[in-house]
Amino acid sequence: MNQPADSAGVERAVAKGLAGQRVRIGLVGCGVVGTGILRLLRDNAETIEARLGAPIEVVGIAVRDPSKLRDPLVPAELVGTDPMALATQDDVDVVVEVMGGLDPAGAVVKEALEKGKHVVTANKALIAEEGETLLEMAESTGVDLYFEAAVAGGIPIIRVLREALASDRVVALSGIVNGTSNYILSRMTSAGLDFADALAEAQAKGYAEADPTLDINGGDARHKLAILATLAFGARVDVHAIPMEGIDTVSALDIAFASRFGYVIKPLAIGRPTDDGELDLRVHPALIPESSVLASIHGALNAVHIEGAMLGPSLMSGPGAGALPTAMSVVSDIVDVGRNLITGAHARVPSRAFRGSTLQALPLASPKSHRGRFYLRFDVHDRTGVLGKIANVLGGFDVSIEQMVQEGGQSEGNPHATLVMLTHVASAGDVHGALEEIDRLQYTTGPSRALRIEEG
Amino acid sequence: MNQPADSAGVERAVAKGLAGQRVRIGLVGCGVVGTGILRLLRDNAETIEARLGAPIEVVGIAVRDPSKLRDPLVPAELVGTDPMALATQDDVDVVVEVMGGLDPAGAVVKEALEKGKHVVTANKALIAEEGETLLEMAESTGVDLYFEAAVAGGIPIIRVLREALASDRVVALSGIVNGTSNYILSRMTSAGLDFADALAEAQAKGYAEADPTLDINGGDARHKLAILATLAFGARVDVHAIPMEGIDTVSALDIAFASRFGYVIKPLAIGRPTDDGELDLRVHPALIPESSVLASIHGALNAVHIEGAMLGPSLMSGPGAGALPTAMSVVSDIVDVGRNLITGAHARVPSRAFRGSTLQALPLASPKSHRGRFYLRFDVHDRTGVLGKIANVLGGFDVSIEQMVQEGGQSEGNPHATLVMLTHVASAGDVHGALEEIDRLQYTTGPSRALRIEEG
Repeated sequence: MNQPADSAGVERAVAKGLAGQRVRIGLVGCGVVGTGILRLLRDNAETIEARLGAPIEVVGIAVRDPSKLRDPLVPAELVGTDPMALATQDDVDVVVEVMGGLDPAGAVVKEALEKGKHVVTANKALIAEEGETLLEMAESTGVDLYFEAAVAGGIPIIRVLREALASDRVVALSGIVNGTSNYILSRMTSAGLDFADALAEAQAKGYAEADPTLDINGGDARHKLAILATLAFGARVDVHAIPMEGIDTVSALDIAFASRFGYVIKPLAIGRPTDDGELDLRVHPALIPESSVLASIHGALNAVHIEGAMLGPSLMSGPGAGALPTAMSVVSDIVDVGRNLITGAHARVPSRAFRGSTLQALPLASPKSHRGRFYLRFDVHDRTGVLGKIANVLGGFDVSIEQMVQEGGQSEGNPHATLVMLTHVASAGDVHGALEEIDRLQYTTGPSRALRIEEG
Repeated sequence: MNQPADSAGVERAVAKGLAGQRVRIGLVGCGVVGTGILRLLRDNAETIEARLGAPIEVVGIAVRDPSKLRDPLVPAELVGTDPMALATQDDVDVVVEVMGGLDPAGAVVKEALEKGKHVVTANKALIAEEGETLLEMAESTGVDLYFEAAVAGGIPIIRVLREALASDRVVALSGIVNGTSNYILSRMTSAGLDFADALAEAQAKGYAEADPTLDINGGDARHKLAILATLAFGARVDVHAIPMEGIDTVSALDIAFASRFGYVIKPLAIGRPTDDGELDLRVHPALIPESSVLASIHGALNAVHIEGAMLGPSLMSGPGAGALPTAMSVVSDIVDVGRNLITGAHARVPSRAFRGSTLQALPLASPKSHRGRFYLRFDVHDRTGVLGKIANVLGGFDVSIEQMVQEGGQSEGNPHATLVMLTHVASAGDVHGALEEIDRLQYTTGPSRALRIEEG
């Protein structure tokens, strides 16, 4: 038991009659994550071989434009431009797809699965949109399809749902699964920046892309939530049907008011089966108590909170993106698939286990039916009676006020005032009905604002 | 792909030519965790079968005294009193050891491994003391030995180290791995209780045992740290050589002073390879910044923070104990072992992967060589010059003061004063040398107190 590490793999392979076996991968895509994978395979080769029981060998790399590959880590002799050919090449055991996007990644992955290749992918859009089809294909050819890096980069949430919680039932999940929007709201909170400046800073630091739309409007988080909900609740989810709100309507003012009430504003993805047999899935910024663990997840970090029926509350946090954390998740998936390969245990985890026990098309709860507490902000002319009018409309919609503060107005000779209210539990439909009426009656000088409050 | 869940296991077993296969377990020990396992296997039977691909069947239960079993969940016809016989019984595939302690649990587990039975155990003392021997035995008979529940109850930290981080190198870990001491310090912090009252409350609520010695003196955390360090750093660790300090010397006064400087006091277990090729392992209460994530782990919750070379910082938190969270971890291990059983992939994870890549007897760093910042408290007679004398001794030991507050003394006509200092980085040996001299020279009215400061 005391041999140096580099002999461990060999010894194990010999013991299993697999001397000389290697896990041979074809790398489809070689951008920052792909290059990170090559770096990790080089730097940690000895450790990985000892822990897997065989070395991992890159037998081919397919990219769109080889002239863009300048990193000396990429062996030029392995680079080609035909991902489809690489994905079906005889000497490839595992196809590692890190090109991203639906096209042509989807066709490449399907071709690989059909040809009996195992697949590891970091592609959240592909898994969110076509995961069910792909898992069925993997099951029918008896291969593994792993996708840890598709959700929350370095956080092993897929593995935990698939294995650590295999004996439990998830009753709720909530998470910060988009690092860009967490970075922006964190900087607005810690440095008092407004949205535009925080976004510009995130772009300058590489936390936001030139076109940050999908990060900011919730589209990216929605993909990840769809994948998590499928695993956690066994639900078939139409990603495009998940209600979402972006963070771009959160103002520095909202963050400051939230803080006065003991809350911070975080970009959340939430999933929870309702008592009516529906699935409540939502992506939106929300107020959470300053003392909650998610409130302490700062900057570009991600975190996922899981409530298990048996387990109770649990949380995992870590980097949600970045070349090396993502590459680490991809390579750990390759190690996992490689362990199955070496022991002949392909499809060791039933594909059904990736998707919860019973894949059902649970109806999504209507966003209007959601009940909870709300933060409301009204910009008003400081006229006598406006508070009363607003309160009347809210009351008419069954929305009752728990706390209120008013800023500006009379005391400073300023005709404009800001009213901020925290409500008791109310239905989202009623809150939005009330706000529409208040804005329509022009009690306010600009559109009123509502944010959900999620209790720790 | 749309069959009801209960047919999934059968379908899968048929596909693999294993129709009728079950994963048959022998349950050794049937206290709160054992009963929790029976409850979980009953309540989640359908989910577990779908996710595993076969049902789990309890074929025998061994306890010391069957007359103590009153829970109707325990099928009387399966109960016997000979754990050794159960562990070697022909129809047992997996021995599940939840009796705890070294004797006779160690002999039972060894006998099971020798007879080629897979073993799942929740026994931290056994794994910490004899893990290496047991893993070697498992390797030589080609069976699985899983022990997720031995560390941090419901937190899947073993699985994450073994699989999710298989491609990475851990550069530091720190955690709150004893729920009792976290509960006590949390209550001292939130409610201003002193140690004795907080302990009494923990006992009343079932968070502390009648004899809480091992929880409070750090012995329990030391077992868990030894297991984590072996997995994370590939180090062979003598559990009894790990330096530990209990939480019973932390006073309400220290907690209040720490708070004035922006810190909370938490019971930590810390592991980190040093630049000198030693392993710095320590169990002690320490001041950590209020804004750090570990500071937000309240009550009896546990948490482990891992810094990966590629991954960067990550944290997992959840219940560290309790019948159902612990049972959940045990049953998830049974599912994992069962998946190996069904696919014939015994010992799929090289035993070496449980222990890092290279099992070395890294020398433990001497506690005196540790360098860091310290919190110091001196109770003094408010005599002119005492501060100067204390500062002189500290200076002579190369311990320099960064911040200081003084309470009591002159201003209140009180002859007693308390001096609290935060130091710059100093060596633990120097700090303790200085404190011994200060106490010996009787500048103080009682023993001086030093606590380490760990920066987020």
